[in-house]
Amino acid sequence: MTTEPVPTPDDLAAALEALRARVPLVHSLTNVVSANFVTNVLLAAGAVNAHIDNVHEAAGFARIAGGVLVNLGTPDDGTAAAFTAAAGAARESGTPWVLDPVGVGALPWRSGLAVDLLRYRPTGIRGNASEIIALAGLGGDTRGVDSGDTPEAAVPAAAALLAHADVVSASGAVDHLVGRAADGTVVGVRIRGGSDMLPRVTSTGCSLGALAAAYLAIAPTPLVGLVAAHAHVAVAAEIADETATGPGSFAVAYLDALYSVDATTLAERARIEPLDVPAVDRR
Amino acid sequence: MTTEPVPTPDDLAAALEALRARVPLVHSLTNVVSANFVTNVLLAAGAVNAHIDNVHEAAGFARIAGGVLVNLGTPDDGTAAAFTAAAGAARESGTPWVLDPVGVGALPWRSGLAVDLLRYRPTGIRGNASEIIALAGLGGDTRGVDSGDTPEAAVPAAAALLAHADVVSASGAVDHLVGRAADGTVVGVRIRGGSDMLPRVTSTGCSLGALAAAYLAIAPTPLVGLVAAHAHVAVAAEIADETATGPGSFAVAYLDALYSVDATTLAERARIEPLDVPAVDRR
Amino acid sequence: MTTEPVPTPDDLAAALEALRARVPLVHSLTNVVSANFVTNVLLAAGAVNAHIDNVHEAAGFARIAGGVLVNLGTPDDGTAAAFTAAAGAARESGTPWVLDPVGVGALPWRSGLAVDLLRYRPTGIRGNASEIIALAGLGGDTRGVDSGDTPEAAVPAAAALLAHADVVSASGAVDHLVGRAADGTVVGVRIRGGSDMLPRVTSTGCSLGALAAAYLAIAPTPLVGLVAAHAHVAVAAEIADETATGPGSFAVAYLDALYSVDATTLAERARIEPLDVPAVDRR
Repeated sequence: MTTEPVPTPDDLAAALEALRARVPLVHSLTNVVSANFVTNVLLAAGAVNAHIDNVHEAAGFARIAGGVLVNLGTPDDGTAAAFTAAAGAARESGTPWVLDPVGVGALPWRSGLAVDLLRYRPTGIRGNASEIIALAGLGGDTRGVDSGDTPEAAVPAAAALLAHADVVSASGAVDHLVGRAADGTVVGVRIRGGSDMLPRVTSTGCSLGALAAAYLAIAPTPLVGLVAAHAHVAVAAEIADETATGPGSFAVAYLDALYSVDATTLAERARIEPLDVPAVDRR
Repeated sequence: MTTEPVPTPDDLAAALEALRARVPLVHSLTNVVSANFVTNVLLAAGAVNAHIDNVHEAAGFARIAGGVLVNLGTPDDGTAAAFTAAAGAARESGTPWVLDPVGVGALPWRSGLAVDLLRYRPTGIRGNASEIIALAGLGGDTRGVDSGDTPEAAVPAAAALLAHADVVSASGAVDHLVGRAADGTVVGVRIRGGSDMLPRVTSTGCSLGALAAAYLAIAPTPLVGLVAAHAHVAVAAEIADETATGPGSFAVAYLDALYSVDATTLAERARIEPLDVPAVDRR
Repeated sequence: MTTEPVPTPDDLAAALEALRARVPLVHSLTNVVSANFVTNVLLAAGAVNAHIDNVHEAAGFARIAGGVLVNLGTPDDGTAAAFTAAAGAARESGTPWVLDPVGVGALPWRSGLAVDLLRYRPTGIRGNASEIIALAGLGGDTRGVDSGDTPEAAVPAAAALLAHADVVSASGAVDHLVGRAADGTVVGVRIRGGSDMLPRVTSTGCSLGALAAAYLAIAPTPLVGLVAAHAHVAVAAEIADETATGPGSFAVAYLDALYSVDATTLAERARIEPLDVPAVDRR
């Protein structure tokens, strides 16, 4: 199976320039832990956000937003209904949307929600390795929202999820993504960078999912959009790591870096490389 | 129509001194994105906050609080019922309260909630230009929680809303406020200052609404209270802007500046000026 | 009544080392104001967190978590049901859990919830002085989530609550704790330190409750666990205070200090001392 063509540095630079020029409007349905940070990450990076997770307004807004994030972090009966409404409307109207299956595998009720949401075919899925493995039905071992698996181990599961989505990533110390090239072949991408501090600051993963929704709103293809979001985060985290003295100062420097990274810096510092993707038995 | 008397620097200094001396208790019913930042802004500026948005306790607490904030950012059926309970109790018991009509115009369900809440005659209304225009029923063009209109363009709408409230502001790059002088004449005030970073940090607008509720609890008139809240924010943001290198460091410096600004600094740096307010056809 | 043995500096150092080695998983059911900060405090200090407050998943997760926090800050009907489910499951399965009775006394509905939760015998209770007094049924005077009483005045109430919990603390400028020694005698502990900035940053108290749940998951006794959590916070706040210029920079430095404090620093800087505990008439 081919692993080319992965997005180039020029593709990433063009995506960041498009983000800054078009300032996409994200519609987020995310958890209460991450709601503030998710919005600040989007504003810093170059998008805007509206957090609308009531069932009365979720579908209507998903139709007019640039991209939608459905994050399963802290669902209840009300927001679960809004997730379905937003995902359905996004699919119907062609708004790209991202599913972040937080806690899937470890928590049975939301695992059912996640499987149900796959019906609306998310444009992108972003999770940690255990969540991706669990969602793919290959088993898995999740410990709350932490991941006991490595992103590398989740690549077969991510590839299997391409039956339900255009692009899928398992993020972690080294992010692993799979998607499809223009000719339909499966493409794998590995993204290095980031910081050991990322898992010490809550909602860095959730906000990556939101940034993915922002990039999917403006990128030429889902693959370029998801890779660009991961690369933007990886480079900003590397920059923040240079000055941080702990998780508090890292979070501050990270927001500053998401804001100050420009297309040239992104193209120069992003470390993306092809990844071999095993053939998947697709039933 | 007269545009005098606008609050003086001495009025602002006295209001800040009263805030610091009396430490008003705000009762906030605000959205999940802003809940943390709203509380931190109040604590930094010199007030305290209790976020109580369940229907069982909202009315009772609105009766004993110094001021109430009802912010429509992320309503659901439960909090919507609490909004009504809190606004009704605030009106009945004489507690000043602020309506922040987040997303009104763009989102139909909450637009209905907002119109309904006007029955309880808020002491103050604070929104962005599009929200103020939409709430006044003059049309408008909102894009999520962003504003496609300028505060200046919202002045006629703000003046029309004086049929429902004592003071109304459209905040933005330059804040525009309207209220009434002691003799009942309409007064317009323009407040300069702030920072280009304010729209890059989420909940700066929401927390201005909360700070307005705090000032309304201790100010001699609603007009002085609302102007003082805006001036405190504008000066603190200007100070924060001097050292910030991005939205992360701006948010930190902003909280520090809200805390460290004293009455002398506020009086010296606040840039308030009279604003001509067009006559409104009040049906 | 004896006031010995209070945990020693070596006990604290050992507890911190156990925290860092075992990285306990906290299950938090906390309010929307504190949800983000609570998680960041746990991640910085050396634990992980899953915020799960829906009734479908709360009981199941309480059985597998290392410790549970039930914080009454912003309850609604849905989360209140989840509180009961989580507390019941924690008690049944032996998972240590902490009750943080935010606003109890001032707010009648949640006061009923809190009394009801005592049936499930929390391992630890952490509140401010007024909340502890109110919960003990000794009266009290709460002003929202602030405390009009001193921690010292809450010691008899805390001791009375030992009928319902293993350890109880009233935190404030100087924290006061009561618990039981191995032989069943009541032990009192006073912990100095902290910073005047702590009450200027929201959720510092809530996150102390969460950190208590983390320490209870790994400490040899509830008394050592609760004292270690308070000492970790007191020392980190003292360190943060040395560089902070306001509440914004304090919060950042505090997270950094929670992360960087090691066992040696904790043992050297913690200021714990015995506290006389009056005999309680236990009906």
